[in-house]
Amino acid sequence: MIYEGKAKRVYEVVGQPESVIVVYKDDATAFNGAKHASLEGKGVLNLAISTVIFEWLKQAGIASHYIRTLSDREMLVRRVEIVPLEVVIRNRVAGSLAKRLGIAEGVTLTEPFVEWYYKNDDLGDPLVTEAHIRVLGVATPEILASLEAQAQKINQVLRANLHKAGIELVDAKFEFGLTKEGTLILADEISPDTCRFWDTATEEKLDKDRFRRDLGGVMEAYQEILRRIKGVQA
Amino acid sequence: MIYEGKAKRVYEVVGQPESVIVVYKDDATAFNGAKHASLEGKGVLNLAISTVIFEWLKQAGIASHYIRTLSDREMLVRRVEIVPLEVVIRNRVAGSLAKRLGIAEGVTLTEPFVEWYYKNDDLGDPLVTEAHIRVLGVATPEILASLEAQAQKINQVLRANLHKAGIELVDAKFEFGLTKEGTLILADEISPDTCRFWDTATEEKLDKDRFRRDLGGVMEAYQEILRRIKGVQA
Ligand SMILES: Nc1ncnc2c1ncn2[C@@H]1O[C@H](COP(=O)(O)OP(=O)(O)O)[C@@H](O)[C@H]1O
Ligand SMILES: Nc1ncnc2c1ncn2[C@@H]1O[C@H](COP(=O)(O)OP(=O)(O)O)[C@@H](O)[C@H]1O
Ligand SMILES: [Mg+2]
Ligand SMILES: [Mg+2]
Repeated sequence: MIYEGKAKRVYEVVGQPESVIVVYKDDATAFNGAKHASLEGKGVLNLAISTVIFEWLKQAGIASHYIRTLSDREMLVRRVEIVPLEVVIRNRVAGSLAKRLGIAEGVTLTEPFVEWYYKNDDLGDPLVTEAHIRVLGVATPEILASLEAQAQKINQVLRANLHKAGIELVDAKFEFGLTKEGTLILADEISPDTCRFWDTATEEKLDKDRFRRDLGGVMEAYQEILRRIKGVQA
Repeated sequence: MIYEGKAKRVYEVVGQPESVIVVYKDDATAFNGAKHASLEGKGVLNLAISTVIFEWLKQAGIASHYIRTLSDREMLVRRVEIVPLEVVIRNRVAGSLAKRLGIAEGVTLTEPFVEWYYKNDDLGDPLVTEAHIRVLGVATPEILASLEAQAQKINQVLRANLHKAGIELVDAKFEFGLTKEGTLILADEISPDTCRFWDTATEEKLDKDRFRRDLGGVMEAYQEILRRIKGVQA
């Protein structure tokens, strides 16, 4: 094991220095770890959902760390050096954006835009500007431009496919990493833990906000996401 | 009276719709109003300091709302429609930037950079990105470019003059406003309430951080700033 995070563990693969195995756990955390629970089966669902989504992206010609899924909790991925930025793309106002700007949740943005959060638990993953990122030295302006373009493209593909499943993508958090060859690719997971998914018709929340806000039915919502996206022809 | 803020009152001038009188009060507030005190003579000192600084800027050919100082608490200024952004320029790491990025106070930045804060007491004046500002609709990208260029230029002039007074400008908060003719000019005040001033040699804090952090000697520090800058030949 190389790293144990809040939701996953990362293992080296003997004889395969360019791959790692990501194991999805059942732990659920929110508010920078202040709220914690174990939700039986969450890891299995998130892995299955991530698998479908990484497959969509592969079919759309978008590079990611995804190689293949090995079991109900294990995904084989390309090993990357994670850029310590959470790349958030927003289609509609929700969560911290609603709070920060004093705008009602649900307002649709004219154009999706990217926000950067410095991936640092001790600092509580603060919002940072491009000037801050320059000071931190975690990414050059060229890398930021590439991350932003990739995030926009991934968002388009996800929205189109999710739409067919009756799901609206409100926002999403991506992580990217540098391969040994020096290319920047999408990594980590894409799941109801890292995206806001709303039912297109009813706007019912089908994501981690059910856990954050004690709405109940967390696992039922994740199950519903998986059920719906499985049927989508990408 | 048109407006009463935390540190100043703004009055209309009979028969002069394009001017207002700004009256400097003795109130001191911090942490979005949570900490409050009255510091006798602060208004008089801040007005005198602002006057010296606006005169420097005038001599450097930088437009501002400043017309002239009328008494020890009153400044006659051009009336503007304030852009609801606090334009912060930083030369060294301090305050909220140190906290946000986890960098020690005092670290010198390679290049001064600007941050935007949405001027909104109910929201606690949050940091905002250019994308957020577009969503809020409070300034176009062209206005932001102009504000940034002006802030950089003002910072250069202030640093050079303050340097002659043995004062280092760590950071500063500017407000800008639109005149009736549609030009964007510097407004509000420039004082130890809105800038971080450190003694160049000892790095002693000579600004509102003495109040925020209960360091004592607040008025003595403001008095010292005034004494030093009065002697500077701009
Ligand atoms: N392909 C990869 N190579 C190396 N590390 C990765 C890869 N994909 C994701 N990671 C990292 O593995 C960790 C996943 O565990 P997680 O529980 O999500 O951690 P965290 O608590 O830091 O969010 C994260 O730090 C993530 O950045
Ligand atoms: N030239 C000007 N014309 C109109 N309003 C101004 C001008 N200069 C400053 N102001 C505004 O006057 C108010 C000054 O009072 P202050 O006590 O600093 O208020 P606040 O508590 O909002 O910071 C601020 O809202 C500031 O934006
Ligand atoms: Mg994670
Ligand atoms: Mg003010």
